[in-house]
Amino acid sequence: MSTTPTIAAVDWGTTRLRVWLLDAKGAVLDERRSDEGLLTAQHKGFATVLDRQLQDMGAATDLPAIVCGMAGARQGWVEAPYVDVPSSLGDILGAAVPVPGAGRDVRIVPGLAQRDPRAPDVMRGEETQLAGIAGLIGTGSHLACMPGTHSKWVAAEGGAIKGFGTWPTGEMFSVLAQHSILRHSIGDKPAKVSPHSEVFREWCRQALSDGDIGARLFGIRASGLLSGLGQDDAAAALSGLLIGAEVASAVRRFGRREAPVVLVVSGALGALYAEAMRLDAIAVTIADADQAVLAGLVAAARRNGMLAEGVAE
Amino acid sequence: MSTTPTIAAVDWGTTRLRVWLLDAKGAVLDERRSDEGLLTAQHKGFATVLDRQLQDMGAATDLPAIVCGMAGARQGWVEAPYVDVPSSLGDILGAAVPVPGAGRDVRIVPGLAQRDPRAPDVMRGEETQLAGIAGLIGTGSHLACMPGTHSKWVAAEGGAIKGFGTWPTGEMFSVLAQHSILRHSIGDKPAKVSPHSEVFREWCRQALSDGDIGARLFGIRASGLLSGLGQDDAAAALSGLLIGAEVASAVRRFGRREAPVVLVVSGALGALYAEAMRLDAIAVTIADADQAVLAGLVAAARRNGMLAEGVAE
Repeated sequence: MSTTPTIAAVDWGTTRLRVWLLDAKGAVLDERRSDEGLLTAQHKGFATVLDRQLQDMGAATDLPAIVCGMAGARQGWVEAPYVDVPSSLGDILGAAVPVPGAGRDVRIVPGLAQRDPRAPDVMRGEETQLAGIAGLIGTGSHLACMPGTHSKWVAAEGGAIKGFGTWPTGEMFSVLAQHSILRHSIGDKPAKVSPHSEVFREWCRQALSDGDIGARLFGIRASGLLSGLGQDDAAAALSGLLIGAEVASAVRRFGRREAPVVLVVSGALGALYAEAMRLDAIAVTIADADQAVLAGLVAAARRNGMLAEGVAE
Repeated sequence: MSTTPTIAAVDWGTTRLRVWLLDAKGAVLDERRSDEGLLTAQHKGFATVLDRQLQDMGAATDLPAIVCGMAGARQGWVEAPYVDVPSSLGDILGAAVPVPGAGRDVRIVPGLAQRDPRAPDVMRGEETQLAGIAGLIGTGSHLACMPGTHSKWVAAEGGAIKGFGTWPTGEMFSVLAQHSILRHSIGDKPAKVSPHSEVFREWCRQALSDGDIGARLFGIRASGLLSGLGQDDAAAALSGLLIGAEVASAVRRFGRREAPVVLVVSGALGALYAEAMRLDAIAVTIADADQAVLAGLVAAARRNGMLAEGVAE
């Protein structure tokens, strides 16, 4: 390392841990990923895991750290109580909670809670990604879509998070493909799905029309029996059905905006969501999810006086 | 046994086998249940399993048998090719397929196929239940709802099956409760759900309003985190959500009829579906599913000349 780091930025998910070392301007000096997420850290100890990672990266034992994600859950390191929506991005970051006795200055960004009895919801980690795309959603009226195991859709107005919803699309794909009768259709290892697949598109189109999942799931099995739908196409059908239904449902709840939907995503999933939205005539702007969480952690460090104000170079 | 049986009636499901011995009028002389369903019979041999059951019941080695269910699947005893809908109940029963070399006269009732590319579907076993409730759906316009692992909804017009759909509601409950994040909410052994539960009713009402499952699943988890929803109530919420969404979706597809929906069901599930339909102001007539399949097998035996025409006493 040619420069001494000023702070560590840490994204602590359920199964993954990512650590960046940043200089005084918020630029990345070093980075690493591990599978020591919440589930591992609960056993090894959060301080032990973070100390070891930072030591391996050659960082000082008193280097401060800004953390987001499941480390702030009740069953995490120290609970960072949910901030209720609506709330401004600045107020969310400002509510970061210090970890007592960590041996270094550690602050954990809180998650968000939506205490609406008709749509109770929570997030941890995505709020930091949202802070990281403040340049896209910080003024005006926007929808952000953050696809994944538990996809989040977020409504932002004038720099505040007004409301959000969770669609467990990735998890449904996984449990239905592995544990339901559809495992006979899809096989042991679901095929990678292409956004150019006509089967993906057709099942997506149908689901976009009404958001109905339950009426169509068994149709994947029946198509195998009646017309020989193969394993690759069965995976594409399930993916199209679930993503199409998610988009239909989210648009029904939040309505359409003038501005493009900001699709915050990394990897192959982005192309599937972009295609689903294209089929529904929804314009999108794509933001990289990894970049977003890092930018959000930098913003959180600045908001909490751990980094000087400025722009990363 | 005081009377010599005339025929055996056999309901051969995926995991269960039921056998009745009937007299010449179709009345039950003896009955037994076993877990030698399709999955077991594929290993032991279908003829071996049936011969043993009938021998244990003291029946003659040449007693004829009328069979419905998965024994007629491609991976079953002998394939009884699907009859395409629309089709009359009489034509469906008349298409029973003889099993060559069984050592006795065995006929298998075929399942139904709906070869609509927008709604491909199949059933095996339920068609026999439908024949068993011909007294309720044999004339006029009717909807039947057959709840279960893979719930079927069936539209009947003038004694013919016009169309049907499958909602894998029981299977979704099971895989989501066991394998998704909701297992933390529901616990290892899902609580029995009561139709009087206000939580069941509230989640059911919400799902009835639009049929949306994906938007609400994670709300069960969030309700646990935000307002302490307990395990019993989490199971009730998931049940209400999935059953309400099924009813909303089926009614959207098939429309409402003047006649009550015929709910073909056995056991506790019937009360949950009846409550869901009451909340949606849908009148129901309940028919016992076990009685229906037996009556359907008697009708199939008569239609194929294995029993004299007449009415069971």
